[in-house]
Amino acid sequence: MEANLLAAHLPTQLPPDLADGVFPAGCPSRTVLDHITSKWGVLILVALSEGEHRWSELRRRAEGISEKMLAQTLKTLERDGLVLRTARPVIPPHVDYSLTERGYELTALLVPLVAWAYDNAGDILNGWR
Amino acid sequence: MEANLLAAHLPTQLPPDLADGVFPAGCPSRTVLDHITSKWGVLILVALSEGEHRWSELRRRAEGISEKMLAQTLKTLERDGLVLRTARPVIPPHVDYSLTERGYELTALLVPLVAWAYDNAGDILNGWR
Repeated sequence: MEANLLAAHLPTQLPPDLADGVFPAGCPSRTVLDHITSKWGVLILVALSEGEHRWSELRRRAEGISEKMLAQTLKTLERDGLVLRTARPVIPPHVDYSLTERGYELTALLVPLVAWAYDNAGDILNGWR
Repeated sequence: MEANLLAAHLPTQLPPDLADGVFPAGCPSRTVLDHITSKWGVLILVALSEGEHRWSELRRRAEGISEKMLAQTLKTLERDGLVLRTARPVIPPHVDYSLTERGYELTALLVPLVAWAYDNAGDILNGWR
């Protein structure tokens, strides 16, 4: 599988300066990491990697998300400059969500992770028994 | 930066069969994704990518983690076959934690993500103002 193949070619250790920056409790990258690895954040970003979505489409796609959580997740991702919100002045008016350039860059790193989870979920859950 | 360079070469979309498997609420890959993208899960896995750690070392490394959360996170990662727990029968006895092969494979995908968060945190947080 692609993600596994990829894993063999990536650095498996964090460079020392990065490690120093990521682990302290107050560091900004921790806040960012929390946003981009949030349960719904990952699913919304990956859904948007397939192209622009309306609110209602995202609601259906990320099965189980509440209106409140979808609103909160989109607001955080928009604030982080990862998602673009476009209000379409058509009749009836609607709002579209898409990835920004930064969002695409990040999603390219999330997709292999999601693919890995998909590939390994069976083995992992079997191991619980 | 390495992670950005990498992003340009990775698929940015999830293959259709994967997308079908990841979004439904009850799918196993969602459970696995929740574990491997949990706030503390990511930091512990990345810390262990630097090599074996004792409990107390992990506690210090993932600044701000409580005893309870560290125990819970390690238990989940161990159950998922990502982390190996080794009790050393020395005096005084202690327990070491390390990555399994599967854990290394996963961590290779997490490290670029953490590196991206580190590289982009400044820009993202500046954008909030």
